[in-house]
Amino acid sequence: MLAPHHDGSPLHVSTQTPALGETVRVRLRVPAGEAGPAGLGLAALEAVSVRSNPNHEPRFAPAVLLGEHGGWAWWQAEVEVENPVHGYRFLLTGPAADAAGAGDAAGAGLPAQRWLNATGLHNIEPLDAEDFKLVASPADIGAPPEWLASSVLYQVFPDRFARSAAADGRELPEWAIAATWGDPVDPEPPARSTQFYGGDLDGVTERLGHLADLGVTLLYLTPVFAGRSNHRYDATNFDAVDPLLGGDEALVRLVEAAHARGIRVIGDLTSNHSGDAHEWFLAAHHHPESPESDFYYWKDAANDGYESWLGVPSLPKFNWASAELRRRFIEGSDSVVARWLKPPFNLDGWRIDVANMTGRLGAEDLNAEVRQTIRRTMVEVNPDTILLGESTNDAASDFQGDAWHGAMTYTTFTRPLWSWLMRPGSEAAGGIGFAGNRVPSYTGRQFHAAHTRFVAGFPWRTRLGTLNALNTHDTPRFATSALPGAVPVALGLSVTLPGIPVVFAGDEFGLTGVDGEASRTPIPWPLLEQDRAVAAAALAQDTARLYAELIALRRGQPALNGGGMRWLHVGDDVLVFVRESEENSVLVTAGRGDFSVTIPVAALGLAAGGAMGLQPLFGAEVAGAPGVQLAESDGEIRLSAHGPSFAAWAFSGVKMP
Amino acid sequence: MLAPHHDGSPLHVSTQTPALGETVRVRLRVPAGEAGPAGLGLAALEAVSVRSNPNHEPRFAPAVLLGEHGGWAWWQAEVEVENPVHGYRFLLTGPAADAAGAGDAAGAGLPAQRWLNATGLHNIEPLDAEDFKLVASPADIGAPPEWLASSVLYQVFPDRFARSAAADGRELPEWAIAATWGDPVDPEPPARSTQFYGGDLDGVTERLGHLADLGVTLLYLTPVFAGRSNHRYDATNFDAVDPLLGGDEALVRLVEAAHARGIRVIGDLTSNHSGDAHEWFLAAHHHPESPESDFYYWKDAANDGYESWLGVPSLPKFNWASAELRRRFIEGSDSVVARWLKPPFNLDGWRIDVANMTGRLGAEDLNAEVRQTIRRTMVEVNPDTILLGESTNDAASDFQGDAWHGAMTYTTFTRPLWSWLMRPGSEAAGGIGFAGNRVPSYTGRQFHAAHTRFVAGFPWRTRLGTLNALNTHDTPRFATSALPGAVPVALGLSVTLPGIPVVFAGDEFGLTGVDGEASRTPIPWPLLEQDRAVAAAALAQDTARLYAELIALRRGQPALNGGGMRWLHVGDDVLVFVRESEENSVLVTAGRGDFSVTIPVAALGLAAGGAMGLQPLFGAEVAGAPGVQLAESDGEIRLSAHGPSFAAWAFSGVKMP
Repeated sequence: MLAPHHDGSPLHVSTQTPALGETVRVRLRVPAGEAGPAGLGLAALEAVSVRSNPNHEPRFAPAVLLGEHGGWAWWQAEVEVENPVHGYRFLLTGPAADAAGAGDAAGAGLPAQRWLNATGLHNIEPLDAEDFKLVASPADIGAPPEWLASSVLYQVFPDRFARSAAADGRELPEWAIAATWGDPVDPEPPARSTQFYGGDLDGVTERLGHLADLGVTLLYLTPVFAGRSNHRYDATNFDAVDPLLGGDEALVRLVEAAHARGIRVIGDLTSNHSGDAHEWFLAAHHHPESPESDFYYWKDAANDGYESWLGVPSLPKFNWASAELRRRFIEGSDSVVARWLKPPFNLDGWRIDVANMTGRLGAEDLNAEVRQTIRRTMVEVNPDTILLGESTNDAASDFQGDAWHGAMTYTTFTRPLWSWLMRPGSEAAGGIGFAGNRVPSYTGRQFHAAHTRFVAGFPWRTRLGTLNALNTHDTPRFATSALPGAVPVALGLSVTLPGIPVVFAGDEFGLTGVDGEASRTPIPWPLLEQDRAVAAAALAQDTARLYAELIALRRGQPALNGGGMRWLHVGDDVLVFVRESEENSVLVTAGRGDFSVTIPVAALGLAAGGAMGLQPLFGAEVAGAPGVQLAESDGEIRLSAHGPSFAAWAFSGVKMP
Repeated sequence: MLAPHHDGSPLHVSTQTPALGETVRVRLRVPAGEAGPAGLGLAALEAVSVRSNPNHEPRFAPAVLLGEHGGWAWWQAEVEVENPVHGYRFLLTGPAADAAGAGDAAGAGLPAQRWLNATGLHNIEPLDAEDFKLVASPADIGAPPEWLASSVLYQVFPDRFARSAAADGRELPEWAIAATWGDPVDPEPPARSTQFYGGDLDGVTERLGHLADLGVTLLYLTPVFAGRSNHRYDATNFDAVDPLLGGDEALVRLVEAAHARGIRVIGDLTSNHSGDAHEWFLAAHHHPESPESDFYYWKDAANDGYESWLGVPSLPKFNWASAELRRRFIEGSDSVVARWLKPPFNLDGWRIDVANMTGRLGAEDLNAEVRQTIRRTMVEVNPDTILLGESTNDAASDFQGDAWHGAMTYTTFTRPLWSWLMRPGSEAAGGIGFAGNRVPSYTGRQFHAAHTRFVAGFPWRTRLGTLNALNTHDTPRFATSALPGAVPVALGLSVTLPGIPVVFAGDEFGLTGVDGEASRTPIPWPLLEQDRAVAAAALAQDTARLYAELIALRRGQPALNGGGMRWLHVGDDVLVFVRESEENSVLVTAGRGDFSVTIPVAALGLAAGGAMGLQPLFGAEVAGAPGVQLAESDGEIRLSAHGPSFAAWAFSGVKMP
């Protein structure tokens, strides 16, 4: 798969944070060679230009040939960023139709033009929505902090992570059904949502060494405000950390200890709804005269019936037309959004729950206003914070760089991954969002097509901030129904594809769970410390080591943290790609089953013999240890493996002419 | 191509104008038969459901099998329209993967799910943007009038259409270069834009008989306000019809005479800019203190430099942040938009120039506000009016039913058509919008792919209101570089594909022109009346008859005016499809060259032998006259032709169980 290439990475775009009106240099690489440009279906490449679409009206800028290096011809054009989201695509022009010698799957009538956009090469005119995108955020919104794209996220569901000694002394509220740490999770009502294990924030603080050992850099806590459930997405207030978690001081202790270890911490806010025991809702319910009355959508004049999240009465939906709600919750330095980012709490950002539905009901759509207000408030208090939005389906339309830095979504990575690497016929209940709770089986080609389709809509930097989760607290755990041997493949893709690797606490011990409730397993800490003679302990320890190794792989390679992304081979049972930067490059193979593929050495930008200098990072056959084989002959690299496999090699960075 | 089908037509959707909150029935047709559902790649169809996406959160509704009729199984689901644009798609579920017997191009791992959306069938999860769409417009925006979808549009560029006797007496302004009617168009500056032939509105009125003979139902006049150019897109005011066109009274006479013939009339407004001699601009230029100062974007405090359309100084760009500009131009019953829809003028609507750029500059995007304000004003004055927006490229994002009823765009029809039916290597300058002024050659498959890609984003009713133009006043004329014999094919597609057929005055006489300027040829009226011994006269008369026949075809067949659209065969040199309604159906073949294709009789919903009852409407081989052959045997229809061809047959309407 030697083909023209562009992506949003620094190799191809001169700045990641252009200002409105700034001129940016965008670069296209085309495989050069005596046989003409490869992968293009044109006999020759006569000209390259860049189509922008300022104010929805096309404009072309010519590209110039900078020269050749490492088998690639580099073209460059200057693009003025005229709108906050500035779409662009490349037009590659060859000789007139009858002179073209290359074959074309579309049959006769070969056009002499090709378009390259975020979904690939096209021989017909493409859609604007698939353009590459430059994003010029206004100063009060800002670009995401640089550290976001190199983060490795660890997700903690506080009730289930760890108990400090102080937890024993706490009296449980009436709604809670007490559980002992070793009890199995009971996913059926009434235990669902109310089974209470009593994990707390000091419990997290005590286990930060584990996070450090794993190598994670970003801790995401699901809600810490009191609710009337174990998940706390039904907040009763946003002003105090739940005393059952140790209260405000416990959060301060946790964040300070995490920061001391170089781990950042983000919280979780429900902008779509509160709990029905929230102080605002209690004040407003049946009280049309209350100051909080317009915080919710009432179905009658008496403030009796109300709109709620998917009709669940305990989660009344916020009405963001209310100026007072905005003032208290999201707008300005006294708001809830601001308060927890400031000392003494110092959270490093927010993950916003149900971001996709926020502010949307019937004919009203205040979503953009709400998300932008949240981000403006954050920038006012501390711009070095991140803002992630939950949007578990097709998310791109809301993630154009005007607020959310990245998406917690399942379309780009999680669902395609499950479809490729899960046992055929698997069921997957709940939050993962498969239609009919059924995991459709995908080939590797379908994985690639689905991944490409859904990431194409994101600007590059949003793509880098989007979660590559195997699973989350809302879904079954991937390991539950994974094909034998597929976990390293899945985790390997999570740490090497553009986006943020995610560990949902317990994944690293090989825990399973059939739905989002069952997956909220209390972490079996003693298991890890047990003798390896206990099979479960050995498995957990081996899995934790695998996680640590792959996280280290991610963190240690510059190319994996914001570098370019180029596919080299897409097969039904194997995917091969390269991440590239000026500093270094990383070759990756992910195999579902046996494979043997060849790739031109030139596709790596190397001269003949160059592939033998690749440095094995993970999973390669070395010194007799089994793994993915790499051999070079006649200008080609042969990669092969038996069974599921994941491997990565480092090599030299990309040089431009 | 026997495959599951849905579109937005009345056969498949229970109402074209749902209200917000209304429950709509949507229906899916699946080819039934002993061999299982055809075209689906599933061994059996076990269940159908409809995925909606209210407030950006998926929701599924089960479909029930209504029964079978004419070889089709009909499924129906109820969908509540929860947002003004309510996307939906079908999920078709088969047996578990290992039980599926059908082949799949994607290879192994056959999924047991298929999605059907506006781009077709998918074996991976599709994008929200490609969903089918139900549109619930608020009352103050409204749905398009019913007559829009069955209109045939005739476009007149007033300076070049016809001169009344009164034109002789008019004194030309200083900028005008007088031309005599028979003079060739001079497309080079200074004549470009200023060469003045003196066509006027009474000239149009005098020729309404020709429009009636052609069968057109909607007259679109490019601007009639005075400018300093022959095209008048540089208005000096919006308050009076240019005296050079006969003034206000001439417009009243024209509209009255047109209405008396059953022909509606729409005007043309420039919402993006005025002329630099516009009274508002003159008042504001160098006058920061003037009431009109904020109507434009100034580059300095002295109101000297200013933003303009593509940098053309004679077309200063409007700043729609100005409340006073809105009040004067677009908002309320005293505005420009309203005035010309009221007596005595009674225009039937507007085409808005450069709708795509309107209100957009840098970080500002007021486009939605402006277009919705325009439409609200129109509804206030006369809801039985139409609003078309010029958006010559990928238009769908602005055309979701919140204001524009249809698009004057070239992506859905015009450019794909040119690429399929124009001589390879053709050049096409200017407004048609081909990159590098070069027409890429498409196969029939590429035509179909491009057409599908760009119409998929429109709600059905916007698609019906969108122009199927062979060319316009801004482009070269199609006939100029068409393949020999291709004009009937192109026009045939224009009248049979969903959308509004367009005749740019002069097309019907076979006129040519190499760019938008050269195409603005004065209509050679005497030619039509000349003896057929003159070859050019015979050609013009034959072409005019072709136009009249194909327009009559369009107007006479219910299925062509809002009926469903289903592809039967897509080949490199031939396209076959059927338009369907309860009243009747129309089978269409459009051939670029020789073809011979077979289609199952069942694909038409007919029993064996049924195809022989098809009634030839146009272009079929009948009684020895040459044309497209249709023969039936063994349950198949064979369609064949030599050379370029267009044919249509009528048959029975679709019956539902």
